[in-house]
Amino acid sequence: MVTGRDESRGRRIRLGMVGGGNDAFIGGVHRIAARLDDRFELVAGALSSTPEKARASAEALGLARSYDDFKAMAQREAQRKDGIEAVSIVTPNHVHYAAAREFLKRGIHVICDKPLTSTLADAKKMAKAVEHSGALFVLTHNYTGYPMVRQAREMVESGAIGTIRVVQVEYPQDWLTEAQEGAGLKQAEWRTDPARSGAGGAVGDIGTHAFNLAGFVTGLRAERLAADLQAFVPGRRLDDNGHILLRYEGGARGMLWCSQVAPGNENALRLRVYGDKGGLEWAQEDPNLLWHTPLGEPKRLITRGGAGAGDAAARVSRIPPGHPEGYLEGFANLYTEAADLIEAARTGKTIDTLLPGITDGLAGMQFVDACVKSSKQDAKWIDLD
Amino acid sequence: MVTGRDESRGRRIRLGMVGGGNDAFIGGVHRIAARLDDRFELVAGALSSTPEKARASAEALGLARSYDDFKAMAQREAQRKDGIEAVSIVTPNHVHYAAAREFLKRGIHVICDKPLTSTLADAKKMAKAVEHSGALFVLTHNYTGYPMVRQAREMVESGAIGTIRVVQVEYPQDWLTEAQEGAGLKQAEWRTDPARSGAGGAVGDIGTHAFNLAGFVTGLRAERLAADLQAFVPGRRLDDNGHILLRYEGGARGMLWCSQVAPGNENALRLRVYGDKGGLEWAQEDPNLLWHTPLGEPKRLITRGGAGAGDAAARVSRIPPGHPEGYLEGFANLYTEAADLIEAARTGKTIDTLLPGITDGLAGMQFVDACVKSSKQDAKWIDLD
Amino acid sequence: MVTGRDESRGRRIRLGMVGGGNDAFIGGVHRIAARLDDRFELVAGALSSTPEKARASAEALGLARSYDDFKAMAQREAQRKDGIEAVSIVTPNHVHYAAAREFLKRGIHVICDKPLTSTLADAKKMAKAVEHSGALFVLTHNYTGYPMVRQAREMVESGAIGTIRVVQVEYPQDWLTEAQEGAGLKQAEWRTDPARSGAGGAVGDIGTHAFNLAGFVTGLRAERLAADLQAFVPGRRLDDNGHILLRYEGGARGMLWCSQVAPGNENALRLRVYGDKGGLEWAQEDPNLLWHTPLGEPKRLITRGGAGAGDAAARVSRIPPGHPEGYLEGFANLYTEAADLIEAARTGKTIDTLLPGITDGLAGMQFVDACVKSSKQDAKWIDLD
Amino acid sequence: MVTGRDESRGRRIRLGMVGGGNDAFIGGVHRIAARLDDRFELVAGALSSTPEKARASAEALGLARSYDDFKAMAQREAQRKDGIEAVSIVTPNHVHYAAAREFLKRGIHVICDKPLTSTLADAKKMAKAVEHSGALFVLTHNYTGYPMVRQAREMVESGAIGTIRVVQVEYPQDWLTEAQEGAGLKQAEWRTDPARSGAGGAVGDIGTHAFNLAGFVTGLRAERLAADLQAFVPGRRLDDNGHILLRYEGGARGMLWCSQVAPGNENALRLRVYGDKGGLEWAQEDPNLLWHTPLGEPKRLITRGGAGAGDAAARVSRIPPGHPEGYLEGFANLYTEAADLIEAARTGKTIDTLLPGITDGLAGMQFVDACVKSSKQDAKWIDLD
Repeated sequence: MVTGRDESRGRRIRLGMVGGGNDAFIGGVHRIAARLDDRFELVAGALSSTPEKARASAEALGLARSYDDFKAMAQREAQRKDGIEAVSIVTPNHVHYAAAREFLKRGIHVICDKPLTSTLADAKKMAKAVEHSGALFVLTHNYTGYPMVRQAREMVESGAIGTIRVVQVEYPQDWLTEAQEGAGLKQAEWRTDPARSGAGGAVGDIGTHAFNLAGFVTGLRAERLAADLQAFVPGRRLDDNGHILLRYEGGARGMLWCSQVAPGNENALRLRVYGDKGGLEWAQEDPNLLWHTPLGEPKRLITRGGAGAGDAAARVSRIPPGHPEGYLEGFANLYTEAADLIEAARTGKTIDTLLPGITDGLAGMQFVDACVKSSKQDAKWIDLD
Repeated sequence: MVTGRDESRGRRIRLGMVGGGNDAFIGGVHRIAARLDDRFELVAGALSSTPEKARASAEALGLARSYDDFKAMAQREAQRKDGIEAVSIVTPNHVHYAAAREFLKRGIHVICDKPLTSTLADAKKMAKAVEHSGALFVLTHNYTGYPMVRQAREMVESGAIGTIRVVQVEYPQDWLTEAQEGAGLKQAEWRTDPARSGAGGAVGDIGTHAFNLAGFVTGLRAERLAADLQAFVPGRRLDDNGHILLRYEGGARGMLWCSQVAPGNENALRLRVYGDKGGLEWAQEDPNLLWHTPLGEPKRLITRGGAGAGDAAARVSRIPPGHPEGYLEGFANLYTEAADLIEAARTGKTIDTLLPGITDGLAGMQFVDACVKSSKQDAKWIDLD
Repeated sequence: MVTGRDESRGRRIRLGMVGGGNDAFIGGVHRIAARLDDRFELVAGALSSTPEKARASAEALGLARSYDDFKAMAQREAQRKDGIEAVSIVTPNHVHYAAAREFLKRGIHVICDKPLTSTLADAKKMAKAVEHSGALFVLTHNYTGYPMVRQAREMVESGAIGTIRVVQVEYPQDWLTEAQEGAGLKQAEWRTDPARSGAGGAVGDIGTHAFNLAGFVTGLRAERLAADLQAFVPGRRLDDNGHILLRYEGGARGMLWCSQVAPGNENALRLRVYGDKGGLEWAQEDPNLLWHTPLGEPKRLITRGGAGAGDAAARVSRIPPGHPEGYLEGFANLYTEAADLIEAARTGKTIDTLLPGITDGLAGMQFVDACVKSSKQDAKWIDLD
Repeated sequence: MVTGRDESRGRRIRLGMVGGGNDAFIGGVHRIAARLDDRFELVAGALSSTPEKARASAEALGLARSYDDFKAMAQREAQRKDGIEAVSIVTPNHVHYAAAREFLKRGIHVICDKPLTSTLADAKKMAKAVEHSGALFVLTHNYTGYPMVRQAREMVESGAIGTIRVVQVEYPQDWLTEAQEGAGLKQAEWRTDPARSGAGGAVGDIGTHAFNLAGFVTGLRAERLAADLQAFVPGRRLDDNGHILLRYEGGARGMLWCSQVAPGNENALRLRVYGDKGGLEWAQEDPNLLWHTPLGEPKRLITRGGAGAGDAAARVSRIPPGHPEGYLEGFANLYTEAADLIEAARTGKTIDTLLPGITDGLAGMQFVDACVKSSKQDAKWIDLD
């Protein structure tokens, strides 16, 4: 009988969580994502800003150590020999920076939900905090974790579609078609509240995902944008629909549509990229497929794990083609790559990953800021630094 | 034995054609469309501006009377007892007005391909010519002839999706991804030549279809637009890709994308409309289907002739559900409605149809003009009268 | 001015029709199909077995010569100098043979709807009648006229999928889910009446199409079948659902499902063929597409007119890719090929076409007969000659 | 600070595994499935029949206790205070019974991969062993764990499609199109080896899934079947393609196709069920969708978590609609329900679940046995039981 158990225990990274108490959607997603590949063990949390709720949530999860606030958590975990090595921050946006700072300055790695912060000012402070910390910072633009998104990026890099001319990215949803924020839905409340969400509504919540995805796949930097934002639902204080024109370095042009008032769309993030030699199309709701349309040849449907799918997809794939992987698996890929990074960091090594980080987070906040500015000036073009 | 034949002959409307000689794509389409429901008989033509080609084309078609130019044709047909009652004009854009004028002023009905003309100035003259003529004028925005487009329009009118907020319309193609105009392709040559096509490239050729379709289904008038046009193919003189923001009366917002350089897209006109109570989605390449997504209910797929399809679709449908009708049938619906109009006109009656006409043609030319103006001013908003 | 008109008149083949009066679905389809490519002119008809209805229908169509019965029509048309050259027989099945015989023996070409007859005995007589006639006989298994069906056949022939192992063909509909035959629907009445339809219900009406399509594409002859037929609707006298196992020459195996009681299926004929090197899939409701799945390569979607589509499809295609052709165009392809045959026959030439004829008709009746026999013996294997 | 950790430890069920060493596909799937909802902790294993491989695999997984064979594991774990409470058996089929017996007789719950065993004789012994054990037995017919499969079952039960008439189920794959078993692919080797797989090839490996799924959704028992099995790949000793006719209690008829030689099909399990009031369609490769086609109404697309999805789906769903869940989540649903059962059993309670168990396993083996018997007798009908 081989007893490898203690070694294994050692291998699971000790993880904490800020936010993610009962009722929160994204906290549970992070926990499953962290667990899926068996690389993390959640051992501590400040799961809510309301102490009673924090405790109840921790108990429900069977969590070892529960804290009433993230600052106490950071302090005390930093002092423990078996303290957390990394923390997931899954609060509303306005708390991201204050929470992350506490952990970063104590050398605890941060895995933070998007968008980076609620304000561009906070985002810049976050960037400084990351710069001055020895710890790692990962931003969960989870859609970049999908195998076929990786595949698309790899194909663009390899020249499969030639020089990119046109980027079409859209992210429609329908869950805010009516005023859910007045109907007691927590998720809707903070997302439509400028104090907690920031200056962007749909554009911050999902527009940043779309913007990030387009950049991730194409490798292109957006230089300017013109945005026409609108709050269609009466009384809503933040945009629930955005129409955005983009100009990328090198001359490519883009359109980005994000909406939370488009009935029939659940989570319909979709990216299409066209170059002078071909096109690529990927849709989040059918994530195991990637269309490749080389000019002058039949359309090709590449499947995760199937013929035509390369190394970049294989690295983040677990099961054979035809066995659909989904949202949680894509999200888990970020956690598993974060685990690789953290383990490398233990021994002073660095490794290459495609993980989104502080740079992407800052770019996302600049995107939101530029959208809001542009829209206030009747869709005037705004430079993205 | 009943001999109804002569009566029948009498019933077929005598049709002429200008343009549409060998090599032309759209001329053949018009001829099939005119013939499909047995309401027209093509008896005369000036099928090409090159006399030899005109004659050869007429001979190939077995056409009764062939003319070397449209003016002679208009004059002589107007004098015949059995002269044409209507003419189809299917030349490149820059000829539309000059040709139509000759027939209109002689009281011969005109069925004209889109866009209306090559210039806004010509469009306005055309409008005057129509106004001063007793003859009918039909513009073949053929996509409005599809049954499920009619269905969508009827559903919007009936309130099925509530107040419209968002319009997403796109029309990507890929046939001009490379410089076909330099490779001897006639269709490409004139479409990329400002002298024959007008100031708009993709925006005129297909953008006008998309713009018209959105207006037809929603019943909304666009008030302003901002356009970012681009000619991606080196040396091309007209836009081959257009990104356009739209603002409709009543507050709805839209995006329109047209492209002829998007590999993998053949003729992918698609319209999505979202109101506060639901959404509709229709795609030209799968024209017998219409998605209806009422808020808070399962998505519904309405099929031509199937449950949920109403009178507006049934009126322009020939065969049962599951037996796909296509592009030619949709096009034929315009001809058949034109035949109804023409027959009514014979007896001084007027009837209601949904046929696009001079107003739509003028709106399309204003759209092209505004797009070009806006794009030259860095996507500045331009009013559409 | 060139006067090519008379020549043109000459070129249109003079066509008669038996059956196809008001209310009939398929008669109208044949008329459009005959007209679409301008190769026929319908000049005579015995449109109904009820004289009043025959006359009224002829008058509604503006038909030149209307007869009260097909025998009189055959006799008198054969005597006219300008008599019909071909006749379309679009009656219920039990009339096919009696009608066809009259025209065949007078040298008038016959275009006959499927299935060939209502009984195998009649089918054999029909085969003799064709054999003894100098006239042509075309059976409208119209699905073989679709461009992408031709493409599939060409690819199989060229070895694109290797040696065929498995054939999956299905043809579900839902229009007889309830007892429409008792509700006054003419189409349902005769199709569920053994006296008019024959021994097969669904298996005759649509199973024969599926069987024919599989043979057309694969080029394989079915040797044996085992059938489990069922009449699900209470009181129905003919099968409305059939499950059939097939064994083809050379060792390929097949399954054929036909049903008229499968809610949600309108006209969902679909064929899948798998060889040792790849697969092909085609669906009638999306007829412009063909999936080709070469083993070990990405799936390919071939579109009518697009890259990868070859000569066989191009020959029966009218408009560019992305402009959907449908059921009527596919049907028209048979008429146009029939016109080619007829014109060749005028001058004593023969040409090769892929038109289904008497051999296919006989095979279809043997299929129906074998299905019924097998089913009565508890799905025992029955040889197909 | 709340310390809930020990409680949590207590809550994770201690799990062992037999089989599932390096290279095995399904072992890793079981481990992720067990971990996903945090209800199990894998602590012991006999991961391979080769001791060296067992040890190496355990070490790679950081497994606490590794055994060289399952018998030693059962004995010693049963003696430990912290011994495993449940074991997952993920070996080739021929080992299932021998392994399960050891654990069942010691009161350790068994979660066993399908098919139940390699022979019907073993299956019957397994049934006895389960009967005589106080422990639970779960068979991982994982496709029954998908939310929309649960939804379909619930809808059938509620009468949404009326009385079932027709069942169409198919499970094509392509990975054995060539002789992978001769090319060193482990997965292929044992699956095509009668000694390890049993008398059925495709019919045992995937046909049982299809058969089980149809029964699960419809609630109908199959009474008879007729099977036409074939081994297409030269030299293959077990069937790689099966065509099967089914007759269900109450008169419904079915067709089942399973194949591992159908190029272009990855894991294309699909079920269609038609009743006298509507139809349902579900496809494993797009598992978050369910088509419902009520007779005489538009087709409805029900999405996991969306409008129209009921309690049965919600109970086994983690994230909102539009965020695709996949194969692993469906598999995990069985583990999580097993955890519920095990926890209830700890306190002597019983609860209702939809988990497949010994009855399903036995039915599956009878299905395989009947298919092989029928096929040997030229597709003669064989009674099930």
